[in-house]
Amino acid sequence: MAEMIAQESLALGVNHLFAPVVDLARELRFGRVEEMFGEDPYLSGELGYSFVKGLQKNGVAATVKHFAGFGTPEEGLNTAPVHGGEREMRRTYLPAFKRAIIDADAWSVMSACHSPEVPTNSATTTASANDVEMGGGSFNYRAIPGLLEDGTLEQEILDTAVSRILRSKFAMGLFENPVSAAPQEKWNKLIHSEKAIKLARQIYRESIVLLENNGVLPIDKKKVKSIVVLGPMAHGFMNYGDYVVYLSQYRGVTPYDGIKNLFKDTSTKVTYAQGCERWGNDKSGFPEAIAAATAAEVAIIVGTWSRDQQELWRGFNATTGEHVDIHNLNLVGAQADLVRGILAVNPNTVVVFSSGKPVTEPWISASAAALVQQFYPSEEDGNALADVLFGSYNPSGKLAVSIPRDVGTSPSYYDYQKGGRFNSPGAVYENGTMVFGHQYVLSSSLPLYPFGFGRSYSTFQFSNVTVDKTNVTATDIVMARLSVRNNSTRDGTEVVQLYITDKIASVVTPNMELKGFKKVFLRAGEAKSVGIPVDVKGLGVWNTRGKYVVEKGEFVVAVGDSAEGIKSSLSFWVG
Amino acid sequence: MAEMIAQESLALGVNHLFAPVVDLARELRFGRVEEMFGEDPYLSGELGYSFVKGLQKNGVAATVKHFAGFGTPEEGLNTAPVHGGEREMRRTYLPAFKRAIIDADAWSVMSACHSPEVPTNSATTTASANDVEMGGGSFNYRAIPGLLEDGTLEQEILDTAVSRILRSKFAMGLFENPVSAAPQEKWNKLIHSEKAIKLARQIYRESIVLLENNGVLPIDKKKVKSIVVLGPMAHGFMNYGDYVVYLSQYRGVTPYDGIKNLFKDTSTKVTYAQGCERWGNDKSGFPEAIAAATAAEVAIIVGTWSRDQQELWRGFNATTGEHVDIHNLNLVGAQADLVRGILAVNPNTVVVFSSGKPVTEPWISASAAALVQQFYPSEEDGNALADVLFGSYNPSGKLAVSIPRDVGTSPSYYDYQKGGRFNSPGAVYENGTMVFGHQYVLSSSLPLYPFGFGRSYSTFQFSNVTVDKTNVTATDIVMARLSVRNNSTRDGTEVVQLYITDKIASVVTPNMELKGFKKVFLRAGEAKSVGIPVDVKGLGVWNTRGKYVVEKGEFVVAVGDSAEGIKSSLSFWVG
Repeated sequence: MAEMIAQESLALGVNHLFAPVVDLARELRFGRVEEMFGEDPYLSGELGYSFVKGLQKNGVAATVKHFAGFGTPEEGLNTAPVHGGEREMRRTYLPAFKRAIIDADAWSVMSACHSPEVPTNSATTTASANDVEMGGGSFNYRAIPGLLEDGTLEQEILDTAVSRILRSKFAMGLFENPVSAAPQEKWNKLIHSEKAIKLARQIYRESIVLLENNGVLPIDKKKVKSIVVLGPMAHGFMNYGDYVVYLSQYRGVTPYDGIKNLFKDTSTKVTYAQGCERWGNDKSGFPEAIAAATAAEVAIIVGTWSRDQQELWRGFNATTGEHVDIHNLNLVGAQADLVRGILAVNPNTVVVFSSGKPVTEPWISASAAALVQQFYPSEEDGNALADVLFGSYNPSGKLAVSIPRDVGTSPSYYDYQKGGRFNSPGAVYENGTMVFGHQYVLSSSLPLYPFGFGRSYSTFQFSNVTVDKTNVTATDIVMARLSVRNNSTRDGTEVVQLYITDKIASVVTPNMELKGFKKVFLRAGEAKSVGIPVDVKGLGVWNTRGKYVVEKGEFVVAVGDSAEGIKSSLSFWVG
Repeated sequence: MAEMIAQESLALGVNHLFAPVVDLARELRFGRVEEMFGEDPYLSGELGYSFVKGLQKNGVAATVKHFAGFGTPEEGLNTAPVHGGEREMRRTYLPAFKRAIIDADAWSVMSACHSPEVPTNSATTTASANDVEMGGGSFNYRAIPGLLEDGTLEQEILDTAVSRILRSKFAMGLFENPVSAAPQEKWNKLIHSEKAIKLARQIYRESIVLLENNGVLPIDKKKVKSIVVLGPMAHGFMNYGDYVVYLSQYRGVTPYDGIKNLFKDTSTKVTYAQGCERWGNDKSGFPEAIAAATAAEVAIIVGTWSRDQQELWRGFNATTGEHVDIHNLNLVGAQADLVRGILAVNPNTVVVFSSGKPVTEPWISASAAALVQQFYPSEEDGNALADVLFGSYNPSGKLAVSIPRDVGTSPSYYDYQKGGRFNSPGAVYENGTMVFGHQYVLSSSLPLYPFGFGRSYSTFQFSNVTVDKTNVTATDIVMARLSVRNNSTRDGTEVVQLYITDKIASVVTPNMELKGFKKVFLRAGEAKSVGIPVDVKGLGVWNTRGKYVVEKGEFVVAVGDSAEGIKSSLSFWVG
């Protein structure tokens, strides 16, 4: 994907991009969660690494951002302070930056813009010195000659900044091969090529997550006679996120378009009813939507929506984006009632959440026939969604972020510190019955859907988990192996996840941490042996003296299909 | 108060108490917020200081706890990690401990029991070494001889622990005057004396906070003919918090008792209807309550409830206490609907929230004739509440904690870092109309009621604010003076609050910080000159090198009746 992005950028003469974002999605109210890879340091580091490599291989500079600790601002408000000590910074926030900046050799880094509560005494403040001024019209660089003259700015600081910029330019080879846009007649070949469109569909459908399914999915496209697509998120615009080209939301295949495409040469009827707007409580469209839902197979698509930055700055309403922060994670306006109305008349309703970050409505999870989460799409949105809903693609997407029950039960990330998540839950049931617990009194401290979770139309069986050595040193690679079998009559893909727990350490460590994963395609009935290497030097702690040490003792290797779906575990010992 | 507590403790032979708690109430889901003095470092330090002095003056050891940073556990869960760097620790969490431990010379300290994310490299870890084992039945001290023998425990560590305990015992004079309980015949004089009961009423009525009042309060006790007290929190038990003696909740003057007491020799009718239980959604009591409310002056008392620890451990339902954490700050069960029903039939309804920490229902704030917040009471609860409702005491309580609009708009403490609270609010109105904002999209990032807020039956005017010097050094005391006038025909008490903003500093500093306050009693129409000293050495920052420095530059002095009710401000300069 990054290689394709680089190709398209270069064709336009753009050789420096402001991505990837390896901040961690741990404060879900924050409007920029939509830009992040997820909540996990390891996963974000691996994805960031690959993204940087992909861009820079083609000569386009990546910008790893926002350095560092930007994902958890107080109150979820853009630029608010981030709370966290140096050990937390080093354990949780810096590893993804290390992977993307040092290991992948990124040519630029963007500093974070929250109040610098974190770091305090660490060297990161210096390392994140700002050498380049962003566009936007402030033109502060014009003041540099004056500041040098009156002594406010030291020549050395300026020289360091310039030398860093030059270093990147040399590394990019810009002095040998200055970049210029491709001639316009080549654009059609280089930009928005058939290959790019295919890739956009392939990658996107792999990212769709099936959260619930009572068997209604996949819908048999040969048998279905009539489909109604409902909801304000299903048609009329694309839900791309805020950092996109002005008005690009009107280019792309919407969910309704995609489903129509699938049936265009058939007798199956595909219709659409909006039901309500995204941004209001007007229910005048409900009767039409509910009537349409009564007689047909139904997919209802609701969610939260973004606007491109230009529209955001002009004040158009949106629910996410930079400087657009929310105070809960629910559906907005009439959308929840629309779902309620449809579910009441059609038991086979498939609800699709379209959003750049978690939406959480536990009652929909409990009552819809199926629930699908689509994060921001490519332009092939509707086609990819149709692939999943009608089974030409067996869903394999896994959550890169835990979904809490509501804002009051967050943060819900899986790698909480040991002892950090007592759970003796209570509940309030739909009929009003209350069951009192302690964590929480009337809810649960555990997420609704855990990190790494995602269903398939197949079921997979994990067995024979082994490690190639049990007594190891800090420089070893331990190879974990297991057998994965597709226990179904349908080809499918599973993401095998490997988590490590440092059983006893000199400082408190996370309950578990992702340290490896592998995506495995398995034909119906097929079994494969899967190997996941664990690099022992990555299992250290920052001890009370601020040193990174792989400590002796037991490390538990747990293998599963989500952070809460552990199938098997065993241990090795660092001696 | 602390002196009286010490007197009663000593009479029973108890010379060591587990108070005060100077943790900061900044994560309102946490069940132990009820034990804290509030969200503010300065206020908690001053109250902690006085509490320690009061206890120890009478020879009872105070225990300052929980050292340190215990007030903001992740997810609001008891013992979960606390996020914060060393500078935040030093700026925000440690000052109250410094006041209560060092300045007040506390004889014991209890360590916090959250996952030690904070501190990281600071010396506080050593300082909080545990020398005493709490009761509870684990008897780990029995292992000490064995641990010494096999070398696991160093003799020096044990010696240090013992020497610290002995130091406290020497300081308490225990070797000269061993403590024993007073003879039983003196208990009636020393414990639960008339003076203690009077004090309990006086202190408690000063703590009640009037949040809203459309003029219905105070109720004229000579004119009122019929009063109905409603709601499950108004009678049958006391709402004391969890660390109380088993079953003490059944001793004390309930709100209904107190109001009855006031009218016992009059023709005014005082009746009670429960309406609903605290812990359920059964509304069968609504008709009786609503009928009663239709014809009378009404006080409806709802809230969240606690249980004594013994009942908590036995699993009785409760909404707060140690290991009892909540996921929202709303009323529980049928209580909100009970209020809704009463408000619909009686426009003069006074709603009273009874709770150990903030309850937030913005719709009640907007629609009740008056709203009163009573935090945990003394045994004189109902009498003190009657004093306030019927005007024999003019309310003077101020919030020691900001009340957010809901859990999703928290934390809401007033001393956020500069730049840390963008506020471009949106809203959803009762009729469904939605107005889109950015912070938050459909709410506000500001609290519903700010720190320091509380109404009076009088209005006060602040004028002529001055400081005695404007160019100062770090060792100066600046005296701020102002005139406060009671612009009403009723005697009243105002709490004048002084906040400081360090205008430009080498590190990010809070938007404002309480640095002084004075409680002033003013007869109707009276004006007084009030002086509040500001100790300049208390205005330093912990700089990027980890040093405490009072930096040069402008400091703004703001005087007001709450953190958002600033009446006047001016500056002085540290040179």
